[in-house]
Parts: sequence; C-alpha cells; structure tokens
Amino acid sequence: MQTLPVDFSTRLGAWQRRVEEQLAARLPDARTEPKRLHEAMRYSVLGGGKRVRPALVYATADVLGVPLTHVDGAACAVEFIHVYSLVHDDLPAMDNDELRRGRPTCHRAFDEATAILAGDALQVLAFQTLVSGPGLPDSAQVRLRLVDLLAQASGTDGMAGGQALDLAALGQELSLAEIEAMHARKTGALIRACVLMAAACAEQLAESALVALDEYATSIGLAFQIQDDLLDVEGDAAVLGKATGADLALNKPTYPAVAGIAAARARVRELHERALAALGSSGLANTEPLAAMSHWLVARRS
Amino acid sequence: MQTLPVDFSTRLGAWQRRVEEQLAARLPDARTEPKRLHEAMRYSVLGGGKRVRPALVYATADVLGVPLTHVDGAACAVEFIHVYSLVHDDLPAMDNDELRRGRPTCHRAFDEATAILAGDALQVLAFQTLVSGPGLPDSAQVRLRLVDLLAQASGTDGMAGGQALDLAALGQELSLAEIEAMHARKTGALIRACVLMAAACAEQLAESALVALDEYATSIGLAFQIQDDLLDVEGDAAVLGKATGADLALNKPTYPAVAGIAAARARVRELHERALAALGSSGLANTEPLAAMSHWLVARRS
Repeated sequence: MQTLPVDFSTRLGAWQRRVEEQLAARLPDARTEPKRLHEAMRYSVLGGGKRVRPALVYATADVLGVPLTHVDGAACAVEFIHVYSLVHDDLPAMDNDELRRGRPTCHRAFDEATAILAGDALQVLAFQTLVSGPGLPDSAQVRLRLVDLLAQASGTDGMAGGQALDLAALGQELSLAEIEAMHARKTGALIRACVLMAAACAEQLAESALVALDEYATSIGLAFQIQDDLLDVEGDAAVLGKATGADLALNKPTYPAVAGIAAARARVRELHERALAALGSSGLANTEPLAAMSHWLVARRS
Repeated sequence: MQTLPVDFSTRLGAWQRRVEEQLAARLPDARTEPKRLHEAMRYSVLGGGKRVRPALVYATADVLGVPLTHVDGAACAVEFIHVYSLVHDDLPAMDNDELRRGRPTCHRAFDEATAILAGDALQVLAFQTLVSGPGLPDSAQVRLRLVDLLAQASGTDGMAGGQALDLAALGQELSLAEIEAMHARKTGALIRACVLMAAACAEQLAESALVALDEYATSIGLAFQIQDDLLDVEGDAAVLGKATGADLALNKPTYPAVAGIAAARARVRELHERALAALGSSGLANTEPLAAMSHWLVARRS
C-alpha cells in the first residue's frame, strides 16, 4: 500500500468501508432460520478480503460522475458472485482448499452441504440485489442491463466456464494464448463486468469512452490473474492468507509456470501500460482513480 | 394419466414439447468449450422429467390470456432453477443420490466438480433467460419483476433455505407445522413462483384474482411435496426413475412419516380441494387448465 498516492489510498479505504457496510446490511440475519446457512453466508462474505471488485465499481462510477448511491447494488452483487465462486472453488471436489483470507474455508468452518448451499444462495442474492432494494439506478432498463452483464460474466461464457476450463487444464500443457483465454473467463469476465456495470449506470457515455473502458478492464483483469499466479509462486502465505504453491502442487498450467517468472512480470507491466493507454484515449476528463486501481492491483503483495 | 380429461392431456403434452424445444435451444452447445460442462448441463436438463413447473407457467398464462410467447422465458427459467437444485441436492455431500429420472445423477455420469459447476451455470442461465432473448414480455418493469419473483423463490427465503432446513431436520423430530413450513420453502416457493411469474405477465389482473391464484399455488405446492413423500413410501422405483425409501433411510421427517399415510393422503385431498376453491373464488372466467393441473399433480404415480 505504501506505493499508492495518499489521496487514492484514502478513497480506496472509504470504498472498502462503504461496501463492507452495504454487504453486511444485505446479507440475511444470522438470528433467523436457517441460521447455519445464514451464518455460513455471512462468514464467507464478511471475512475480510480486499474488495477489489466493488472498489472497481466505485472507481468507475467516480470517474464517470455516477452517484455512488446508484452503484452500491452493483458493488455488492459482484462481490456476492465473487465470494460464492470462492466458496464453491474451495470445495474438496474442486480445489480442495483449507484456508481462505487467513481463516478456514467455508466447508471447513461449516460443512460441505452448507458450503454448497451458501454459494448457491449468494448467487441468488447477487441477482436479487440488482432488481430490488436500495443502491440502484432508477431506470428499469438499466437494472435489466446490470442483470444481463452480471449473468454474462458469471455463466459458461464467463466465470463458471473459466473454472471448468481451469479444472480440465490440470496436468495439461496449454499455450500462453490458451492460458490467457481461460483467465479471460475465469477472472477477467467479472472484473470487466465491474467496469461495464458502473458504465451502464452513466448517462450519455460516448461509445468511444465505453470501448476504452472495456479495453482498460480487459487488460487489468488479465494482469490481476497473472499477478495472482505470480503471488502463488513468490508470495508470502502469511500475507496472502492462503497457502502458496497450490498451482504447482496441482500441476496447474499458469502464465509464470509456462513462460517463466520474468516473462510473467513483464506481461503484467505491459498489461498495466495498456490499461493506462486505454484510459488516456478514453476522452474522459479525470481517469486518475482507475489508473490508481490498476497500479494497486499490479503492485499488490496479497 | 388415464384420469386426465383428453383435452387437458393434449394441452399438457403440447406444453411439455414446447418447453423441451425451448430448453434445448437455450442451453449452450455441447460442441463448444467448455464441452464437458455444456454436456453436463444438457444431460441434466434434457434428461426427461415431467416439466411440472413450466406446465404450470403455461397453464396460468392460458387461464389469464397471456400469449405463451411472453412466458417461454419464465417457463425455461423455473425449470433451469429446478434442475440446478436437483443436481446440487443429489451431490454426495447432500442427499447422495445415484439415480435421477431413471439415469445416473449428474455427478455419477460426469464428476462432482462438473456437477457443482453445471448447477451454478444453470442458475445463471435461469436469470439470464429472464432479461434477454426471446419469450419475454416487452416491459422492462415486468422482466425485473420476474427476476425478483424467481430470486425470492430460490434464495434463503425459498428453495435454498428450505434445503438447508431439510438437511438440518435429518434425524430430528418435527411437528407437522414445521414440516409444512419447510416444504413451503423447499418446493412450495418455486411452484408458487411459476403461477406468480405468469400472473406478472398479465395486464390489469384484479388484486382479488392474484390473491386467489396465490392461494391456489401455495396449496398445490404443499400437496405436490406431500404426494412426493407418499410416493417415496409407496411408489414404484421403476416408474419414479429414482430410488424409493430414501427418506426413511435418511431418517428424514416427512408428512407421511409423522402423521401416517392415511392422514397424508387426506391432507393432499384437502389441499387439492382448497386449490379448486381458490380458483372458484378468483373471478376468472375459465380456470379449468389450472384445476386439471392440480388434479394431475395429486393423482400422479411418478
């Protein structure tokens, strides 16, 4: 965090606190039945996390002059989808992870059945968050567009499809292009949706600005995943809050594994530059928060 | 089926064929990547089934004069949600079922990870089906209402919550009221959503008619589940396409187990009568298709 400009660091903290409150308020009360399911949902969502995706929603809204009160719903929805995917990916039949954000994974803290159901229910909650409740744009057309963008990013063309490709790739040899295509679905699609959903809430956004934001989002999405894979090789488990070396142990083809660490780092830098160039060509007046987001994501150590 | 009026039987067959075509067209192509995931989704959805929920959507639309072309999306969405719930409920960590609709369950035919992802992706597809593509009402407001109704029926206040209560109830003693409350969520909520979603597509529906349809849907939802539990005790596994006696083996509290078979049958009849009475008081001109639906559901042997 020491490399971030003070102003951005303050804003990021404010966004993180904002979404934390919003998430807590939207999750079902753990004192109501079914309590164990509700506890598991709250445990998984409210267990820390950098809130990268909500911050990206807020940063985009900030750049586009969209009131944050119009994107609180989108910020929560993307995080609910992200957390449900972590809960399911951590299951024994998938990545079989025991530690997440420095604590036992959902199925370890509760049980497998509860973890499956908690993930299922978080996915429902994500879509529900986009159609009713506070923090949404007024227009029904725009809300529908938000549901559509989130669905495209989460389904077989997006995150779920990417996870399937990831599982199929274990022990396989993939080209860098194949790895990047897999990442574009598994992580990239939801990162991209954060930017596109906030953009959908903006009035009269020029088509050229939207194209530039899309290029920005696609670039940082891929950079984010390669950085994640680098941290799995080089990172500190105590800082990460999860085990390192998991990809290697699973014989998972990753960018650093196939191209080497130096090439992976270079690719991250290149994608970061591309993201900044896209912002520069967007025609938008002040894109600094999004530039700082990209810097944060590629410089992070956890 | 021999007890159904010829006219209704013909219509039911037409609805079943209609939704079959619609489902097949909306599922991702098994020749595109990730193929195994797409195959698992198609295997699970297109593997037979009575299509009770889509038929209920169409029957309600029929009664209310809503064009079927406006509810095809809703009919598919409820079936996608239903099938995803079967795929996840069948998992080893949940009910651990090996047979479904006369064939191996998804995780037996494929593998657990694929079954988890197929369920996840089917849930996304359900919501996506309600916002874009053919078979929807024109109004964005009404589409949003459809998403909201489906989300309410699927989340912790509905199906996912009901499944959690069901798992928590294994080996416990429940009162009949508690069993009925559990059923109202686990099965009842989605059955009710079928009727309410079709009703949401109707223009200028009287509030009294909506209340009557809600009462009808709630009654048949509960009757349907008690009949299901009766078939688990009395049914023929070959006709059902799944193992019988599973509830008893799991020490699952069900209406027949707690109240006895005769009382369970009487409760089904009573709920059927209540459903018919609600239709009678609805003020709607021709409710025969919905009456026939209720009759079909309580008389079924599979």
